[in-house]
Amino acid sequence: MRFALSIEYIGEKYYGWQKQNSDSTNTVQYFVDKAISKVANHEVKTICSGRTDTGVNALNQIIHFDSDSSRSEKNWIDGINSNLPNDIRLKSILKVNKEFHARFSAKSRTYKYFINNDSESTIFNNAYTWIIDEKLSITSMKSCLKYLKGKQDYSCFQSSGCQAQTSIRNVQSLSLEKNKNIITFTITANAFLYHMVRNIVGMLVDVGLGKLEPKQVKMIIQKRDRSFSSKMAPAHGLFLWRVAYPQIFKIKYNRESILL
Amino acid sequence: MRFALSIEYIGEKYYGWQKQNSDSTNTVQYFVDKAISKVANHEVKTICSGRTDTGVNALNQIIHFDSDSSRSEKNWIDGINSNLPNDIRLKSILKVNKEFHARFSAKSRTYKYFINNDSESTIFNNAYTWIIDEKLSITSMKSCLKYLKGKQDYSCFQSSGCQAQTSIRNVQSLSLEKNKNIITFTITANAFLYHMVRNIVGMLVDVGLGKLEPKQVKMIIQKRDRSFSSKMAPAHGLFLWRVAYPQIFKIKYNRESILL
Repeated sequence: MRFALSIEYIGEKYYGWQKQNSDSTNTVQYFVDKAISKVANHEVKTICSGRTDTGVNALNQIIHFDSDSSRSEKNWIDGINSNLPNDIRLKSILKVNKEFHARFSAKSRTYKYFINNDSESTIFNNAYTWIIDEKLSITSMKSCLKYLKGKQDYSCFQSSGCQAQTSIRNVQSLSLEKNKNIITFTITANAFLYHMVRNIVGMLVDVGLGKLEPKQVKMIIQKRDRSFSSKMAPAHGLFLWRVAYPQIFKIKYNRESILL
Repeated sequence: MRFALSIEYIGEKYYGWQKQNSDSTNTVQYFVDKAISKVANHEVKTICSGRTDTGVNALNQIIHFDSDSSRSEKNWIDGINSNLPNDIRLKSILKVNKEFHARFSAKSRTYKYFINNDSESTIFNNAYTWIIDEKLSITSMKSCLKYLKGKQDYSCFQSSGCQAQTSIRNVQSLSLEKNKNIITFTITANAFLYHMVRNIVGMLVDVGLGKLEPKQVKMIIQKRDRSFSSKMAPAHGLFLWRVAYPQIFKIKYNRESILL
């Protein structure tokens, strides 16, 4: 039997979902696989929708594994959660047909990035937002979004070390909203390049600060110019928010709201 | 010269503001005194408005110290903050006249306690709220507030180990508000007994869960019954929110809002 799960985790203490080399104990997957294996009573290796990087959070990381162990939904959830650290939690599990694959069935991934644009922020608001004291121009930032849409070569936002075979990605939608001091950037694409979202956010912040003109952004993308010097946005403000699958699989998601 | 300061801190990693015995390095005061001493270039021992307990947060802890060192406001703030850990921050400093005393000049202290009454909370909302899955009756909880007002003996809410000479306190105001899932309890008194706010919140939660009747609360207070068995609310939901002083001292406060 194949099971699809939604997992949430705070990325702060982990080297991302999966580590490349042999020393991979301090990864989210290490703890998830260990907890599931214990409850399933056999060794389990999960497959995820997409690897998150060091320090990045997930509200809905979708994963799957195969097992013939028979457990009720409640027993899976309670058993697995009692074997997970406090900053990783299984939110749902359901049986899916064998055609489901957390990575290959995914139609798109949505990430959100939170900025706290506040010159008088308190230390209590730092956990999941990038705090920027200086006032950002939302109008300028929004005027760049049109250059960041559609199927094109996004190599200017690709950090070195990216193992992707092509730097063409299809950005299906993106938005920037401000509510009180919180700026929320949402982006949905078929897939992302290494550090792509954080590099985009870093560039948008430079536009918001007036260090870059929106038309320069257009040039940077068109010329695939990887030399632009915007600071990459820090990991703690980034969330893997949702992964979309064909409706036929009836994937369950964690509620899409957090308090910021 | 005497200086009055507003400090904010996340209590999680500290044994409160001040530790009683000699091993007091893991306290907020230890780090604050050390940072100020470094900038003042002489040993400083601060006096606080009221000691917070292990794990309790402060949005506005008001403290004072004496120094003849001459620094600009910016130099005090930047210098002290660069010597403080990330979870303690100086928000304001101003010269006050010598009659100001952080503890004895205070007219009242206001604490806030945050409950997240949510059966589907995410791990991202846990930091400063007490998460209670089961639905709480706000109406029942509010109906207790009238018993918790005014000058009376609050010994039923006093944890053992309290060193106060009298258990009479004057509760000047209190309120309970719900906004989405967040329940905010606010209480202002001349002073508080050891664990008083957390014991009150624990009892209110039992009322909200239907384990205690509001009229039982009235009896518990009147009979000074310390045997009631409500669980004390955990420290991480509690904030020292504001300390009121006579206007003549012109104390500056940290902005009174955090994002929850």
